[in-house]
Amino acid sequence: MKYCSHCGAPVHHRIPPGDNLPRYVCDACGTIHYQNPRVVVGCVPEHEERILLCRRGIEPRRGYWTVPAGFMENGETLQQAAAREAREEALAEVAIGSLLSVVHVLHAEQVHVFFRASLPAASYGVGAESLEVMLVRPADIPWADIAFPSTEFTLRRYLEDRAAGREGHHFTSIDRRLQRAPA
Amino acid sequence: MKYCSHCGAPVHHRIPPGDNLPRYVCDACGTIHYQNPRVVVGCVPEHEERILLCRRGIEPRRGYWTVPAGFMENGETLQQAAAREAREEALAEVAIGSLLSVVHVLHAEQVHVFFRASLPAASYGVGAESLEVMLVRPADIPWADIAFPSTEFTLRRYLEDRAAGREGHHFTSIDRRLQRAPA
Repeated sequence: MKYCSHCGAPVHHRIPPGDNLPRYVCDACGTIHYQNPRVVVGCVPEHEERILLCRRGIEPRRGYWTVPAGFMENGETLQQAAAREAREEALAEVAIGSLLSVVHVLHAEQVHVFFRASLPAASYGVGAESLEVMLVRPADIPWADIAFPSTEFTLRRYLEDRAAGREGHHFTSIDRRLQRAPA
Repeated sequence: MKYCSHCGAPVHHRIPPGDNLPRYVCDACGTIHYQNPRVVVGCVPEHEERILLCRRGIEPRRGYWTVPAGFMENGETLQQAAAREAREEALAEVAIGSLLSVVHVLHAEQVHVFFRASLPAASYGVGAESLEVMLVRPADIPWADIAFPSTEFTLRRYLEDRAAGREGHHFTSIDRRLQRAPA
């Protein structure tokens, strides 16, 4: 952020009075521009013991596999956003179920939220942002080609819970801010 | 948003190619400015069967009661944010517990997330954004003076679950976008 989105004047990055974090502050109109994590929401759709995966057609991680997920929009619930992403990326009408995982992706300033979902009909297709969509048996999940650590965490917890006959929810954090080169 | 925060040129509100929602688009530098819901996170701190409430010292709803909560910041987890808000608003060191509620506040473009929490010592104070902080018995919660519907939903589910000896999590939505005057 270089300019005030309210008045167009240059902004400065400093700690406003009474605050304790630096913000983008506009001295011309007085607006303080807060920046907060964005929510990414998705689901693990299942149909007859197979899971719906999409191969990404856009960056980041083009060509790698993931479950349908994307940025939550204003005016929708988490569940509505998860269902919309399945519709957009896999042309699939899913029924969103229980909360499955919450992943704090700290370096990306994102919170990823995933739900269980059922895909009543084996009806799906390749959405505009996908290269390929498939229903796979758990044994056939392409673990080496999964797009994101949050997807892998989510799929593994999903399968563990399913094997144990439970529907828990799981928190974790991923932080590459402090990543160092190997010695 | 009137000006591009990247280059300072005026922005236009329209649907970009390949999208299906209007966005603030800068024709000068090509940046598309996405706007997404912000996450508010809080907790219900309990100490010896009493709950910690704060009377708000700032708008909106100045003078009304709530649990410690506020906007999640970049670089922190939901649990860290909830603990930080308790520290800032009630000078209280809490241990964050299980997920309690998720409230989609659609008209405000916010997602409110609350956790259970324990307050090991009855040590608290009045933070900069509070007028008053108190530990109350459930029977003494000032229901008529609770600041927000998401706070009331959260406190009621908390007490119901506690009475039933369980720790569930609860989703709901609040939508005042379509509110009409009574006939």
